[in-house]
Amino acid sequence: MTKHDCLARIAVVLSRPRHPGNIGAAARAMRAMGLDDLRLVAPRHFPDPQATALATGAVDVLERARVTDRLEDAIGDSVLAVGLSARVRDLSHAPRALREAAPQIIEAAAHGPVALVFGNETFGLTNEELGRCRMLVTIPTDPAHASLNLAAAVQVACYELANAAHAFAPRLPSSPPPATAEDAEALYVHWEAAMVASGYLDPARPGRLMERLRRLIARAGLERSEAKLLRGMLAAFEERMRR
Amino acid sequence: MTKHDCLARIAVVLSRPRHPGNIGAAARAMRAMGLDDLRLVAPRHFPDPQATALATGAVDVLERARVTDRLEDAIGDSVLAVGLSARVRDLSHAPRALREAAPQIIEAAAHGPVALVFGNETFGLTNEELGRCRMLVTIPTDPAHASLNLAAAVQVACYELANAAHAFAPRLPSSPPPATAEDAEALYVHWEAAMVASGYLDPARPGRLMERLRRLIARAGLERSEAKLLRGMLAAFEERMRR
Repeated sequence: MTKHDCLARIAVVLSRPRHPGNIGAAARAMRAMGLDDLRLVAPRHFPDPQATALATGAVDVLERARVTDRLEDAIGDSVLAVGLSARVRDLSHAPRALREAAPQIIEAAAHGPVALVFGNETFGLTNEELGRCRMLVTIPTDPAHASLNLAAAVQVACYELANAAHAFAPRLPSSPPPATAEDAEALYVHWEAAMVASGYLDPARPGRLMERLRRLIARAGLERSEAKLLRGMLAAFEERMRR
Repeated sequence: MTKHDCLARIAVVLSRPRHPGNIGAAARAMRAMGLDDLRLVAPRHFPDPQATALATGAVDVLERARVTDRLEDAIGDSVLAVGLSARVRDLSHAPRALREAAPQIIEAAAHGPVALVFGNETFGLTNEELGRCRMLVTIPTDPAHASLNLAAAVQVACYELANAAHAFAPRLPSSPPPATAEDAEALYVHWEAAMVASGYLDPARPGRLMERLRRLIARAGLERSEAKLLRGMLAAFEERMRR
């Protein structure tokens, strides 16, 4: 089983969601991160045009969503049910920070279905619901302003799990060929000569000018075409100064 | 400077946002993670009741949001402007994954204001806007379904920075002060004028010359004294060419 397959075995369970827009936005958040198993416990409005409107690119996640009346039916098949809660103080057992818990959640998914359980927008998960979860997880927030939107919490959780699964390496364009040390040295010699010709660099009192330019260019990691561009520019300056 | 202070120095810049609901949801996402400096470039609707409705607990972030017509005015004071982009393939320089870049963004905030720049919901950031950013960052997503909602992207970015701020003690400004975006823009304007004067750059057929120079300097991470050095050199070239 690949790590990507593990993501597909993680279900997002929304318990008693009030706003259909949040259901749609949650579906979109899941889809972008490689999850697609959405389960809804007693949603107030579903299906609903607002859910569909916000599920850009993930309407099929909504269409396949399982709707149940009770949380226990939504998580019955899971080998691990994880409750997401912002209410840290009054929990019976201590929640773990999402980032720290993520690798264990991915590992559990290698064994069977995992459920991430999110509560109602206003009340969160009830104590009874929390009691049905075997792991409690919290997304750390500013203590003075703890309120994450439901779909935002789903987005952060899915992002963190995709990272833990190392599911998606960012697609990077192939990098252009770098300048050789010789290219770079030729550039510095040329640059120095042009600055001497302009009067900006006094060969009798060079100070740290060339050292500072070298440092700037070294930090950038010069490409071959850039060395050529800069030398072309210096040649044009020299040509013009000679006239 | 505490880690929390660093977060307060990171501005979220939304360029040409179309849906006011996303502005409100972005404000809420920022607030939950300890950020509160929101800047809006040419928003289609603002202020707007829908923005206020979605900014639960963060209405004051909306009220203090700065609105400008142009991106350069929104990021002028920043020592680092970070462009968030999902369009990876056609970028001139390689973006970094958010998680990997986050510690460096926090460190930059110890030196001065940092801007996180997000593009329009439909079109993202234009090449011109990307050119004004010194670092490009991408949130890795499922390649087949790359579309993150704007407010969801803001949420993930703020979450990642809040995590990095707690994991990372910024070194106090012993490293040299970085150039501001304004310093850098003034340098590019000067550089372009000097190349035009030398005949190296034909204003009628500029090609990608300035874009390539910007890219080189962006990779280096320009320091304030280096911007000054390069402008001094350009002034000397110009003076000499005029004779």
